[in-house]
Formats: sequence, C-alpha cells, structure tokens
Amino acid sequence: MTAPAGDGTVATVDATVYAELQQFYAGQMQLLDDGAADEWARTFTLDGVFEQNVLPRPWRGRDEIAAKMRAAVGKVAAQQLDRRHWIGMVTARLAGPDVVHTRYYATVVQTRKGGSAELHLSTCAEDVLVRDGGSWLVEHRSVRHDGTAAEG
Amino acid sequence: MTAPAGDGTVATVDATVYAELQQFYAGQMQLLDDGAADEWARTFTLDGVFEQNVLPRPWRGRDEIAAKMRAAVGKVAAQQLDRRHWIGMVTARLAGPDVVHTRYYATVVQTRKGGSAELHLSTCAEDVLVRDGGSWLVEHRSVRHDGTAAEG
Amino acid sequence: MTAPAGDGTVATVDATVYAELQQFYAGQMQLLDDGAADEWARTFTLDGVFEQNVLPRPWRGRDEIAAKMRAAVGKVAAQQLDRRHWIGMVTARLAGPDVVHTRYYATVVQTRKGGSAELHLSTCAEDVLVRDGGSWLVEHRSVRHDGTAAEG
Repeated sequence: MTAPAGDGTVATVDATVYAELQQFYAGQMQLLDDGAADEWARTFTLDGVFEQNVLPRPWRGRDEIAAKMRAAVGKVAAQQLDRRHWIGMVTARLAGPDVVHTRYYATVVQTRKGGSAELHLSTCAEDVLVRDGGSWLVEHRSVRHDGTAAEG
Repeated sequence: MTAPAGDGTVATVDATVYAELQQFYAGQMQLLDDGAADEWARTFTLDGVFEQNVLPRPWRGRDEIAAKMRAAVGKVAAQQLDRRHWIGMVTARLAGPDVVHTRYYATVVQTRKGGSAELHLSTCAEDVLVRDGGSWLVEHRSVRHDGTAAEG
Repeated sequence: MTAPAGDGTVATVDATVYAELQQFYAGQMQLLDDGAADEWARTFTLDGVFEQNVLPRPWRGRDEIAAKMRAAVGKVAAQQLDRRHWIGMVTARLAGPDVVHTRYYATVVQTRKGGSAELHLSTCAEDVLVRDGGSWLVEHRSVRHDGTAAEG
C-alpha cells in the first residue's frame, strides 16, 4: 500500500500530474478494450512487469506483455464480449522527479452480444509509473483480484 | 475513435481543461438523474445532436433533445427507479481553440424502490464539445451501447 | 442539492482544488476499504457529522464516527468480503475561501471470498469540506441511499 500514509493523510501530486495520470489510464484502458494489444503493451516500459495475484508468474517485458495480451483479447473477441476496464480512486505520490507510485481500484464491466451489462471482476492495483515525454509508462503493475486469498 | 492515436500515445488536454470537462460531465449526469430534462438539454448547443446506435434516428436540436428526454425521465420516475449515469475513462484532445473531442465510457446503475442496485447498461461514447464561457456544451454526442451489433 | 444551479449551469472549482478533492476522496475510500477505521475517521473534522438516510440518527464527532466504523468494518472482515467504495460524478463549488460543497455518487462493489464481484449499493451524497493544510476534512456528510423512500 503506497499512497495512504496511515495517519489519515494522503500523499498527493499536483493537478497537472494528476490530470496526466487520469488521461494516461483512460487511454490505456481504451486501447485494451479496443483489443489493441500491441499499442496497449507500448504503455509499459521495454522492461515493464505486469503481475496479477491470480497468475502463476509475472509477464516480463513489453514483448511478453504484448503476446500474452494478444491471446487474451483474442479470447474476449471470440466470445463476442464488450469489456470495459474502469480505473478509479487513484492515489498518487511522487517517488522521484519522473517517477510516480499509484494505488487504485480497477473493475471490469462486460456485456455479451445481445446480453446485459454485468460486473466481471473487481481489483486493487499498484503501479510504478515513469515519465516518458509528456506522458507516462508503466514500469511495474501489480494487481490483486478481490475475493482471492493470496496477496499479489 | 478520436482519442487514442493508435501508436500507444494518447492526445491530451491540460489540467485546467480536463477539470472543466470532468465537472461538466458530473453536472450533466446529475441533471439527468435528477430528472431535470430541460436543464440537461441546455448542456447541448441549440443545434446539438444526440445519437445512440439503438435509436432509429438522432435527436436534433435542443428542443427535440429536451422533449425526448422529458418523456424518458418520466418513464423512469413512473417506475420508481433511481438511475445514476457514471462517465469515466475520458480521453480528450483539442480540435480547435474552443473545441474538444472526447471519448469515454458511460454506464448506468439503477435501483428500484426497495430493491438492490444493479448495472443497467454499459456504453462507449464520443462527444464534440464547444466552449461556452467558463463551461462547455455538447455539439454532437454519439453513444454505442455495448452488446449491440451495429456501430453508432 | 448544492451543486447544479438548476439553470443548466454548474458551479465549479479550479483544477487545483478539483485534483485535491479527487485525491482526498480516493485516499478516504482506500482507508475505509482497507479497514482503517480510525485513520478514516481522521478525514472528518473533530466535530464532523456523518448522516445516512438509512440510519436512525447521525454519527456525531470523530470519536463516534471511528467507533461506529470500527464495528462496521469488523463485520465486513468477519464475512470475508472485499469492499470497494467508488466515488464519482463529483460537482463542487466554493462556499468560502476554505470551504467546498460537493455532491457526488458513491457506489460499493463487493466480492466474497471465492465469489464474484457484485454491486452492493448505490447512493448520492453531499459533503461540506473544509481545508486542512494541503488537504481537506469532512465537516458534514449526508448520504442518501438509492431505492429508499426517505430523504437524507
């Protein structure tokens, strides 16, 4: 847990960085839900790591991240599902001049073709983000799925 | 798809405009869910267009938008439903000094009187917004409902 | 209803304050969902009031707010539930140099151990926030649960 300081105060970033982060996450989720796995993978650093507590081991490096996600979005498309990843409740603190640590909730809403919208899953995640020109890249993402016993 | 540039980068707006957009959407959704159809319609330009891929044709102009929405909110009230429209994952780019293109997710949570909250629907939408003094107005809104075949 | 002015316009705050409010709410919800009831209570003023239209009377003062919430989070933990409070659609207006009135939606997503994510409830709330150094504290919170008859 990076962001809440534990004494009721919360480390924060300024409005400029917070707006950058919000737009980064919005764009990243849209790429994912559009099935643009390669473009999505380019929102990670070349040596980026993506770990989820429900997976046996982390995905390491942009190439593996892209390959794994291409397979995942292919399955979603084959099932004719519209998936929407929502990120919210983002806390953030500067960990260096060009490094931000965030903690946030992410949930997935999915709709089957001809079906109704349903909640697919709920998670809590932590990122290490590094500045890349006017935007940000994920250097490390750790996602813990709610309802699971193991810690991510 | 206006916002993601397709190469992993995303066009963005500055923090001032992003905060304006977020507050614009928050206020617009509150007006809608409060059943204030006329006030909600005034968040569109006089010649604003509201199209949804599940409707046979767009609503054109503030008067038609108000009339159609008055009928819609009347039905919701008659069913004693509390509806909450949430907008999130907003990407935005300047398309002119006073014009912004956005793309975002919108979902509706509804609760029947005495009942439990449920997801009503999930969508992805695109707006053309024009500056109106210190706020914004919708010139064109296109909403695609998830789980439907047709493109909006 | 504090924020929408009722004529289609909405009072707003600047990007700096809006980013502060968003990060305040994000941190406050994370404390709650982490079960940190005492730290969460310290996001209220010493004489803060927390009222919900489904409770017989308001919780008054940080001590009572902490005690009541410790009991509530204890029950959630005993049921092995992961709860996520999401706040969104936040409208805000300055009511003084260091006072902000907000109105927003709050929903709870919960996941039982080994179970699926589900919507637990949907609400609309209003806060009076007062500046406390670089952050904010809740002086008064009023939550109305959707689907209930009584007004908060």
